[in-house]
Amino acid sequence: MQRVIDEKEKPTIDELKRRARIPSKLAAILHPYYGGKIEVVPKCRVKGMQDFSIWYTPGVARSCRIIEEDMKSGSMNAAYEHTFKWNTVAVVSDGSRVLGLGNIGPEAGLPVMEGKALLFKYLGGVDAFPVCTNAHEPEEIIQFVKWLQPSFGGINLEDISQPKCFEILDRLRKDKEVSIPVWHDDQQGTAAITLAGLINALKIVGKRINEVKITFLGAGAANIAIARLIVTAGAKMSNVIMVDSKGILHPNREDRKILKNKYPQKWEFAVRGNAEGKVGGLSEAVEGADVLIAMSTPKPGTVTKEHVRSMASNPIVFCCANPLPEIWPWDAKEAGAAIVATGRCDFDNQINNSLGFPGIFRGALDVRATTITDEMVLAASYAIAEVAEIDGLRPDHIVPTMEQREVFINEAVAVGEAAIRHGIARIKPSRAELLEKASSMIMRSEQMTKMLMREGFIPPPPKEVREDLEAISKPH
Amino acid sequence: MQRVIDEKEKPTIDELKRRARIPSKLAAILHPYYGGKIEVVPKCRVKGMQDFSIWYTPGVARSCRIIEEDMKSGSMNAAYEHTFKWNTVAVVSDGSRVLGLGNIGPEAGLPVMEGKALLFKYLGGVDAFPVCTNAHEPEEIIQFVKWLQPSFGGINLEDISQPKCFEILDRLRKDKEVSIPVWHDDQQGTAAITLAGLINALKIVGKRINEVKITFLGAGAANIAIARLIVTAGAKMSNVIMVDSKGILHPNREDRKILKNKYPQKWEFAVRGNAEGKVGGLSEAVEGADVLIAMSTPKPGTVTKEHVRSMASNPIVFCCANPLPEIWPWDAKEAGAAIVATGRCDFDNQINNSLGFPGIFRGALDVRATTITDEMVLAASYAIAEVAEIDGLRPDHIVPTMEQREVFINEAVAVGEAAIRHGIARIKPSRAELLEKASSMIMRSEQMTKMLMREGFIPPPPKEVREDLEAISKPH
Repeated sequence: MQRVIDEKEKPTIDELKRRARIPSKLAAILHPYYGGKIEVVPKCRVKGMQDFSIWYTPGVARSCRIIEEDMKSGSMNAAYEHTFKWNTVAVVSDGSRVLGLGNIGPEAGLPVMEGKALLFKYLGGVDAFPVCTNAHEPEEIIQFVKWLQPSFGGINLEDISQPKCFEILDRLRKDKEVSIPVWHDDQQGTAAITLAGLINALKIVGKRINEVKITFLGAGAANIAIARLIVTAGAKMSNVIMVDSKGILHPNREDRKILKNKYPQKWEFAVRGNAEGKVGGLSEAVEGADVLIAMSTPKPGTVTKEHVRSMASNPIVFCCANPLPEIWPWDAKEAGAAIVATGRCDFDNQINNSLGFPGIFRGALDVRATTITDEMVLAASYAIAEVAEIDGLRPDHIVPTMEQREVFINEAVAVGEAAIRHGIARIKPSRAELLEKASSMIMRSEQMTKMLMREGFIPPPPKEVREDLEAISKPH
Repeated sequence: MQRVIDEKEKPTIDELKRRARIPSKLAAILHPYYGGKIEVVPKCRVKGMQDFSIWYTPGVARSCRIIEEDMKSGSMNAAYEHTFKWNTVAVVSDGSRVLGLGNIGPEAGLPVMEGKALLFKYLGGVDAFPVCTNAHEPEEIIQFVKWLQPSFGGINLEDISQPKCFEILDRLRKDKEVSIPVWHDDQQGTAAITLAGLINALKIVGKRINEVKITFLGAGAANIAIARLIVTAGAKMSNVIMVDSKGILHPNREDRKILKNKYPQKWEFAVRGNAEGKVGGLSEAVEGADVLIAMSTPKPGTVTKEHVRSMASNPIVFCCANPLPEIWPWDAKEAGAAIVATGRCDFDNQINNSLGFPGIFRGALDVRATTITDEMVLAASYAIAEVAEIDGLRPDHIVPTMEQREVFINEAVAVGEAAIRHGIARIKPSRAELLEKASSMIMRSEQMTKMLMREGFIPPPPKEVREDLEAISKPH
């Protein structure tokens, strides 16, 4: 099982604070230094002004006509062929729940969305563009996304508060006016990577997903989506217990009317989950559980050693609050946790969304998918889990790291194939073609970034930050 | 005056058709070959995955907080500093009037908007992104743009049909919820470059703008905007006569009720222009006029030699319908036109929008302007005119060509300075700083494109099109 950490290996709170300070300090200096993180560049030949007679008027009219005719025939393929739509994703946010910062608004959320677009390109070869919006009401955001579609091959919703995020995603996924995949990364992306980690953790402890009891601490967008996906993957709804700030969700809670009307997604777990009919708080919920998945308060001690001790044998503990987990990994392990995962990159087993969306959208785009189904998300989870397995599963290695670029390629192929299987792909490349496309797009991004740095179009960082940059590049 | 063209120099209709065929053929092949025209790339250092702790969570939260605090203080400067907003423009179109193709819809319009974004970057160093939209009603487009603002430093409306384009632009420019410049290139851009040409043409013929009689053929968005700007530049409204498909605009026309209610912009010229009280058609309107500006039917013969002969001495004739002018330049000159301009790049004096928007937005962005005023558009016109004058004004040289990159730099400085003068600039760089910024951004774009081609990230075109590419690169 996961090795016990020596006292001297445990980072002190001061050390953790120091670690957090450096990226913050660098961010404050380097965001203005680079003036943001992404830019738009030509990808077609421009040798001189005469080439604009192809790319713009008069020549471009021909491509317009070709698309117009194709659309009339009910197809959209010409739009994917003659424009950049085949590779574009809008990262849409109203800034109502940005990271752990809360409702900071669309402008203040822009650095995150621009960062997401950077990750999309660097990791998945996807041309993502941050579209922060002043639309805030659910109806407004739904309308905005519907109006926004034509330029894009996909929509990534991001950092939108609950409960509105559920309604927005669910309705956009069902809407017949929406012809491209709509994805909410805080729901589906987090679910995909958490399930991948769980699949491998269960293999290690030798338990089966349809038998384990799973307790969820926190009933936010992420945990609801994770629970839904895990049930889709085979877990029994009746074995799921969900705990929010008022305790275990069950049908007789005092706030049942509010739950039922305002939080139907939570209500579903109150009614259909928790077959044992448990009441109380986390202590009651976690007792005898095989798995604890916490996405709640970023404060160690939220989950205690006693909680872990009360779980079933070889318990699996995912404590993914950011920046601090609900229990320190070493404390969880001392209390008997067989496998511990967190949201932090400086601890083992980081449950990291960035392992998901770049590869998942790569796959969805490469088949010109009309939506992303739950089956495609499941396929992504299995693809992620598989890559970790290549190096051998260990309690401290249940998920891949971002350095393993093959994870994105594997996901893209799996997602593309699932889309074709489920009849929502506009084109049907072979497995070999999907593999070749994903590999080449992803490699190209990394090579291009290197070349832009080498050629000075991305200048080196200022001298004053070199030491801090070295500090964050060292393993902890 | 402008030299008379020899018979053998006159292109035949077949030759013109051939010229048009090649860019169309190339567009049909090369758009799919390159998969569109622009892409999104990193512009910040990414040496390894650890750098994402700066650009994404956890470090990025600091930039979010800095923007949030700044916004609370009523400023928006931190958003311009910590994100790419300082350099972004959305090219927004509903595809309702694309080039001469009509209402082809947002998907079919996308190749044009992507081409526009390419021009924005290559000529002005601006990170423009095509945002084709399913919003169609004026209220919808207005709402869409208001929701779209946070990620962008400016909005370029494009290819939206009239009359809705007037209302959309006018209301967005006045709206207090709009904090960035909104520009409709088919109105303001066309007006800026047409006025630039007129300024120089009047210098050559030795007439003054406040004395000339100007006849407009066509009362679409472009001509209305041109007439408005020319009046702002000093022409007398009373000296303006406008002709639409039903004849001269005057207050007693049979369709006066429709004009008044549905086309208030045209009605204004019926009421306040045409002081002589002319009635009839183009023949009556153009008689004795010093200037004819036609933006009407793309068919030579729409304006006849007789029309030109009936004008005042040394008449100026701008016949800018695309792809064919309302009168062949050689015919206009044979009939006595002192100066002729068209919309075609293969004839002298091309009235070309691409000379305007890249430099105008460069200037507006570099001072973080809150809007683009008429004074800024005028400043751009004078800046464009000035660059043509450097090489010496001649009847066949009244506007610069796109090869003269200094036109964009000159415009940017003029527009930035005008914004500062009129108190709508968020920051106030010096003239030297504006010059340096515009020069370096524009040079960088060209160099980057060259480098991307050299390094193979923009591949060479396929062999089959080499001959055609050579053909379009030769001067006619």
